[in-house]
Amino acid sequence: MAQKMFRKGMKKPGLPPGSMVHIGDKKIEKAKITFMDYDDQKFTEKEVDSVKMCYPLKDTRTVSWINIDGLHDLDLISCLCEHFGIHPLIQEDVVNTEHRPKIEDMEEYLFMILKMIKWDEQKNEIQSEQVSFILGSNYVVTFQEQPGDVFEAIRERIRTHSGRIRKMGNDYLAYSLMDAVVDEYFVVLENLGEKIQNMEEEVLLSPTTSTIQKLHRIKNQLLFLRKSVWPLREVITRLERSESKLIKKQTVPYFRDMYDNTIQIIDMMETMRDMNSGLFDMYLSSLSNKMNEVMKVLTIIATIFIPLTFIAGVYGMNFRNMPELGWKWGYFAVLGIMLIVGLWMVLFFKRKKWL
Amino acid sequence: MAQKMFRKGMKKPGLPPGSMVHIGDKKIEKAKITFMDYDDQKFTEKEVDSVKMCYPLKDTRTVSWINIDGLHDLDLISCLCEHFGIHPLIQEDVVNTEHRPKIEDMEEYLFMILKMIKWDEQKNEIQSEQVSFILGSNYVVTFQEQPGDVFEAIRERIRTHSGRIRKMGNDYLAYSLMDAVVDEYFVVLENLGEKIQNMEEEVLLSPTTSTIQKLHRIKNQLLFLRKSVWPLREVITRLERSESKLIKKQTVPYFRDMYDNTIQIIDMMETMRDMNSGLFDMYLSSLSNKMNEVMKVLTIIATIFIPLTFIAGVYGMNFRNMPELGWKWGYFAVLGIMLIVGLWMVLFFKRKKWL
Amino acid sequence: MAQKMFRKGMKKPGLPPGSMVHIGDKKIEKAKITFMDYDDQKFTEKEVDSVKMCYPLKDTRTVSWINIDGLHDLDLISCLCEHFGIHPLIQEDVVNTEHRPKIEDMEEYLFMILKMIKWDEQKNEIQSEQVSFILGSNYVVTFQEQPGDVFEAIRERIRTHSGRIRKMGNDYLAYSLMDAVVDEYFVVLENLGEKIQNMEEEVLLSPTTSTIQKLHRIKNQLLFLRKSVWPLREVITRLERSESKLIKKQTVPYFRDMYDNTIQIIDMMETMRDMNSGLFDMYLSSLSNKMNEVMKVLTIIATIFIPLTFIAGVYGMNFRNMPELGWKWGYFAVLGIMLIVGLWMVLFFKRKKWL
Amino acid sequence: MAQKMFRKGMKKPGLPPGSMVHIGDKKIEKAKITFMDYDDQKFTEKEVDSVKMCYPLKDTRTVSWINIDGLHDLDLISCLCEHFGIHPLIQEDVVNTEHRPKIEDMEEYLFMILKMIKWDEQKNEIQSEQVSFILGSNYVVTFQEQPGDVFEAIRERIRTHSGRIRKMGNDYLAYSLMDAVVDEYFVVLENLGEKIQNMEEEVLLSPTTSTIQKLHRIKNQLLFLRKSVWPLREVITRLERSESKLIKKQTVPYFRDMYDNTIQIIDMMETMRDMNSGLFDMYLSSLSNKMNEVMKVLTIIATIFIPLTFIAGVYGMNFRNMPELGWKWGYFAVLGIMLIVGLWMVLFFKRKKWL
Amino acid sequence: MAQKMFRKGMKKPGLPPGSMVHIGDKKIEKAKITFMDYDDQKFTEKEVDSVKMCYPLKDTRTVSWINIDGLHDLDLISCLCEHFGIHPLIQEDVVNTEHRPKIEDMEEYLFMILKMIKWDEQKNEIQSEQVSFILGSNYVVTFQEQPGDVFEAIRERIRTHSGRIRKMGNDYLAYSLMDAVVDEYFVVLENLGEKIQNMEEEVLLSPTTSTIQKLHRIKNQLLFLRKSVWPLREVITRLERSESKLIKKQTVPYFRDMYDNTIQIIDMMETMRDMNSGLFDMYLSSLSNKMNEVMKVLTIIATIFIPLTFIAGVYGMNFRNMPELGWKWGYFAVLGIMLIVGLWMVLFFKRKKWL
Repeated sequence: MAQKMFRKGMKKPGLPPGSMVHIGDKKIEKAKITFMDYDDQKFTEKEVDSVKMCYPLKDTRTVSWINIDGLHDLDLISCLCEHFGIHPLIQEDVVNTEHRPKIEDMEEYLFMILKMIKWDEQKNEIQSEQVSFILGSNYVVTFQEQPGDVFEAIRERIRTHSGRIRKMGNDYLAYSLMDAVVDEYFVVLENLGEKIQNMEEEVLLSPTTSTIQKLHRIKNQLLFLRKSVWPLREVITRLERSESKLIKKQTVPYFRDMYDNTIQIIDMMETMRDMNSGLFDMYLSSLSNKMNEVMKVLTIIATIFIPLTFIAGVYGMNFRNMPELGWKWGYFAVLGIMLIVGLWMVLFFKRKKWL
Repeated sequence: MAQKMFRKGMKKPGLPPGSMVHIGDKKIEKAKITFMDYDDQKFTEKEVDSVKMCYPLKDTRTVSWINIDGLHDLDLISCLCEHFGIHPLIQEDVVNTEHRPKIEDMEEYLFMILKMIKWDEQKNEIQSEQVSFILGSNYVVTFQEQPGDVFEAIRERIRTHSGRIRKMGNDYLAYSLMDAVVDEYFVVLENLGEKIQNMEEEVLLSPTTSTIQKLHRIKNQLLFLRKSVWPLREVITRLERSESKLIKKQTVPYFRDMYDNTIQIIDMMETMRDMNSGLFDMYLSSLSNKMNEVMKVLTIIATIFIPLTFIAGVYGMNFRNMPELGWKWGYFAVLGIMLIVGLWMVLFFKRKKWL
Repeated sequence: MAQKMFRKGMKKPGLPPGSMVHIGDKKIEKAKITFMDYDDQKFTEKEVDSVKMCYPLKDTRTVSWINIDGLHDLDLISCLCEHFGIHPLIQEDVVNTEHRPKIEDMEEYLFMILKMIKWDEQKNEIQSEQVSFILGSNYVVTFQEQPGDVFEAIRERIRTHSGRIRKMGNDYLAYSLMDAVVDEYFVVLENLGEKIQNMEEEVLLSPTTSTIQKLHRIKNQLLFLRKSVWPLREVITRLERSESKLIKKQTVPYFRDMYDNTIQIIDMMETMRDMNSGLFDMYLSSLSNKMNEVMKVLTIIATIFIPLTFIAGVYGMNFRNMPELGWKWGYFAVLGIMLIVGLWMVLFFKRKKWL
Repeated sequence: MAQKMFRKGMKKPGLPPGSMVHIGDKKIEKAKITFMDYDDQKFTEKEVDSVKMCYPLKDTRTVSWINIDGLHDLDLISCLCEHFGIHPLIQEDVVNTEHRPKIEDMEEYLFMILKMIKWDEQKNEIQSEQVSFILGSNYVVTFQEQPGDVFEAIRERIRTHSGRIRKMGNDYLAYSLMDAVVDEYFVVLENLGEKIQNMEEEVLLSPTTSTIQKLHRIKNQLLFLRKSVWPLREVITRLERSESKLIKKQTVPYFRDMYDNTIQIIDMMETMRDMNSGLFDMYLSSLSNKMNEVMKVLTIIATIFIPLTFIAGVYGMNFRNMPELGWKWGYFAVLGIMLIVGLWMVLFFKRKKWL
Repeated sequence: MAQKMFRKGMKKPGLPPGSMVHIGDKKIEKAKITFMDYDDQKFTEKEVDSVKMCYPLKDTRTVSWINIDGLHDLDLISCLCEHFGIHPLIQEDVVNTEHRPKIEDMEEYLFMILKMIKWDEQKNEIQSEQVSFILGSNYVVTFQEQPGDVFEAIRERIRTHSGRIRKMGNDYLAYSLMDAVVDEYFVVLENLGEKIQNMEEEVLLSPTTSTIQKLHRIKNQLLFLRKSVWPLREVITRLERSESKLIKKQTVPYFRDMYDNTIQIIDMMETMRDMNSGLFDMYLSSLSNKMNEVMKVLTIIATIFIPLTFIAGVYGMNFRNMPELGWKWGYFAVLGIMLIVGLWMVLFFKRKKWL
């Protein structure tokens, strides 16, 4: 988990600002370029080899969505950006997969970075991938690290002309894509919530050494989410309140709705953090309780038998003149005394409520 | 408790925004539609089968209150909303019973979501139900998950023309309904407060393993309340400061009063959180104290008898040449020494204030 | 203590807003009405039976101070309020003795609720009583739960024409009354501070189980104070910055001075909270220290004598062929060995600094 | 330490506002009045007996600095204040040595209260003294509790005409005096910082019961500083942003510089608080570690010898028919078994890494 | 580490404000003066002996960067500052190496203080050096404590005319220098992050006493960083939002980018703080766990053998009349009973899950 949080080589000190350096793992061999171009009537979808085939999309009146999978092909990205007039600092941000979510209003276009997260069922942990959006006059460009994303349902809606997406502009397209990213946060949080509830039972009924490691792991995953979610909220607040002419008035309620969602995500996340640290406290108190129980058993046994052993020891001494030893019922009297002492101890512990 | 906090399936990723999906349990079979229509003179109350019978209420000059119990009948709700001109995103929020309290000023109407909570005496926990309000020009529409609510007293006041409710507009009606919801928070908090006070005694006098579970439960219930109350305050702040023409000037003091109430609720809740975590700390310190007591008993017994047992052991050795064994008063001398050692130990513990 | 914090029946859900319900204990049998009417020359003081005798005071040019002791006589209070034109919601607040401190600017008059606290020497705890102020054009009305208050010194000053009070308006009177309430907070805090300092010694020198209960009690009393003081500050801030024409310009420095006092009260209170929780931590560490000491004694005794007892046990065995038993100096040799082992153990503990 | 924090008798409830009451210890017998009067050319310095001799200074064009040591002589102070036109509430604040740092802009003059602290090498604690400043049109009046202050270097600079002080106005004088007070905070913090660093070593190497008391003492001293520093920052912020015509434009950068210094003081103080509480945590963990070590020793010894003692006990039984007792090598066989059991135990602990 | 945090002698109380005093260690013998002077065509680089040779640079139209290494040569610095018209208070700040990062807008020039940090591989700790910037109309002056800095790559870019630096103004130069400083923070944080991740393993697998010291050390290093980073953010925020005419409009996006970087640094740092304190908690719980394990071993052994030893003790008594001793199978019966008791104990512990 932590590996993801602090990666070495996030910065290459000494490079001039605006230098494109791909930061992060190279996840695929060859970058993949696809685009969709549509309005209420027409619809085109294509996968192309050369980025030049996307250039005409800049000047059409239809809505165009260009998607790039793979960020290590710096030439491809800089060509595309050059043609669409994207500032070098933005290009630098696109290929830095360790960037925190942000929004930049460049007047001609809006630039957003989000973290697209997914719950990896097999590794039982959060997978995170960076996705950047450029929202221009009539186009949306998205950059992802690798194929496979949460946008398939939106592509299907565009293809089948379902919902209102084909009737709306590119701002609504950008909203739909971002909303798909945000919705996935709920899924991840629900998974974490379920884990926390399972932990509750484990902490109460059978806490072991691994319990604390699991709690620690959940805590780290929540820390990781936190790093993505709080700046996400900032991005969406600024979008909702944006004065940019790229966001049409009728789309604003949708962004406001998305803002409500991020607030709810933050609410859930913070509640989970509270619950998790509550479980940690319970674990500690359960450790103390177990220690108490162990100590009680030891104390009861030792306290009952140590005095009795002492008595036996006394009559095991070899003094020649020990009158009791000659008494006929001496042995039985001593056994009786031992019994009484033992019972008295038991009563003492009963009164102390240790038994 | 926690089950309620994180429900699976809160979001259906992939659906277009504005799609109505009923989220939550289906609590009743058939949605129930009732309305009240009144002014200072006239009064009508009806339960109707078809939502269409409510349509005329939109254009009367009287105050109309339409109440829907049951949120799973999406057709009914969308028909009603369509007729009253409610935005699709609002419709989506109405049927999502996991939504956090919010307010939306749509100029034509105000939309509010609140959490209606109740103390369930049998399960000894908080029951929560979502209730949404639409405050239009002359009507109020309320959506609830199931029949049974905190509004019965208000209905009675309307029916019997008691108080000033029949003389006031629909903003006062909305206020009355919301105030009834808020008042119930006091009842729930008083119940929790009573539980916390009982816990105080339990922690001080007889802490057991279940004590910590009860404290944890109360903590979770306060976390749950918190998730409802803080956004509630936000809702009411925005209502109080609202510029909306739907809130008449003479109703504003009532909303301000309601705002005071939510602040008091938050105050009480935060004080309870402080007290609860204070009890947790006391529980831990009482565990430590008990451990100390157990250890002391063990130490006293062991420290007194182990040396004595050693002495007895020495004279239990079978060496042929052990002069003391032949002494006449050897046995009694050893008994005397043992007594002295024992008493000296007791004095030592007295001085240490362990006894 | 906690009893005071969460009283049952704070709200009667179902009542229309503005309904007067007396909340709290009925502390006296019959409400008592007194008034003072004065200017620089004249002075009248009376206790009256009927509230109607106060009505003329509304229209005099002199400063009038009407004081009501006892809040359960709803008729009396509503008559008075009706005559002085007080809003029903304000009336409701007056008789709700669980209301938090607040200020309401109704243009015609200002309404303030404060908590008048006192240190109860006998019960060794804080006594709290609600007092409400209405500051009108030329009158001040105060409502208290029972006779006995912190205003006696002010009455005396009015009677004897000492200080500048008879020369100033009713805003100065209101200030003087509120200042008397605020000054009492210092007295209470000084008492708590003294208790905390005593606790410091107790925690360091002789912590017992009751220590933690005392710390818990102080913590709760500080929590209780907090609930009164923070809103108090809010009230006074709003008074100081008030645009109300009821506060004359020359009185503003006095309110600013009172504001400084509340800030100092909050400072002291928060410092005390810090110190109290610091004492709690010290108590825990002192518990651990004591446990360590107990364990050390046990360990030293057991570690020294258990091996010795074992040696004695060996030579207590009854094997026929045990050559050492026949040796002449065997017994003394074993005693010597025991001595050496024992001393070696003692040295070991010395080196570990346990002795 | 704590004695200083909460002094009894900080308020005398019942007194009319603006009444001068000296609060605090009377530290000297007779108040001492000194003044300096200077401009670029002239310079006078005098100690006077009667406050009346300072009256002419109000109307000169030169810069005058009047310093009063001793606050119990209420007549003296009220005469002076009366003559310089100081508001009664300000007079009350001057003689209340428990007042928190504050600033009051009375248009004709500025009034500031600061805490002048010093590190008392002998008592090893912070000494605090209240100093008030009145900055008028051409004069500065300072009130101190007793002779001895941090201003000597400034007096010297005025006398010897060094630096730019004689060329600047009385606002620069006030700045210089306040700056001298603020600089002393660094000295005190450096002393505390050194103590904390020493504690670090003590906590790591040889924690004792007195360690925790020292940490507690440092914590309280930081709490005490905090009460002085945070309002100090407020005072200086308001001075820096002041619109008052008493602060000339060319002096503003100096106040800004002083503001930077207070921020740095707060930074250092908060870092120290963090470090101190970190040391407390380390102390607790070191207690736990020591307990663990003690327990291990006990467990190892007991676990090795208790079973061996049992074996010895078995062959110490007096049954007539115990065949082993008659075997020739029985004794040696048992000794051998004991050796094996003992070694096996040692290996067990080695494997557990307890040895 | 802590040595760096609180150095003695940070302030020399008593000195007039604006007095230059070198605070900090004297790190080199002789101050070193170098400058670069360039525009798109021309380029000069020189190391000079006398500061006077830099005076002409003030009036050229080219961009000049003067760098001073060594702050103890007060004459040199004051000469330079005098010529460039720098305020005495700024001069004082330049030579105080303990100053916190700040920015001062003096209209004619901007003054910034930053902390240039580096990871010292050998000492395994953070090295910090103060660097100040003066950004004037066409020049940048930088002051460092000693030679060796993070600016070499920028010098190289200027010399080789690579990137856009030679085409941009002196504000871009200042940005480049500050950005180089900020980039180094990432390197340091990555090193700390790696250490924290290593600690995680150590805490989980083999916690020792030195573990806690390492965690404490990391905590202190994060505290140290914090003291540099938060004010750094403030500096850059104010630069980004600056109205100063010294920052050209085209450079603003670069400063905004740098602002994003500081936010990310703060994010990482705070996450690390959270993780570090989480590791501390885990360490404590692992201590408790180990104690539990130790106690269990002791309890099991003692509880099994103490009763058996007692039985053996009973039959070791020397009473003459002990019928069992004469029984033929008495010895074997007792051995059998012991076995049963022992097994029963083992089963008891199995049921308790201690074995």
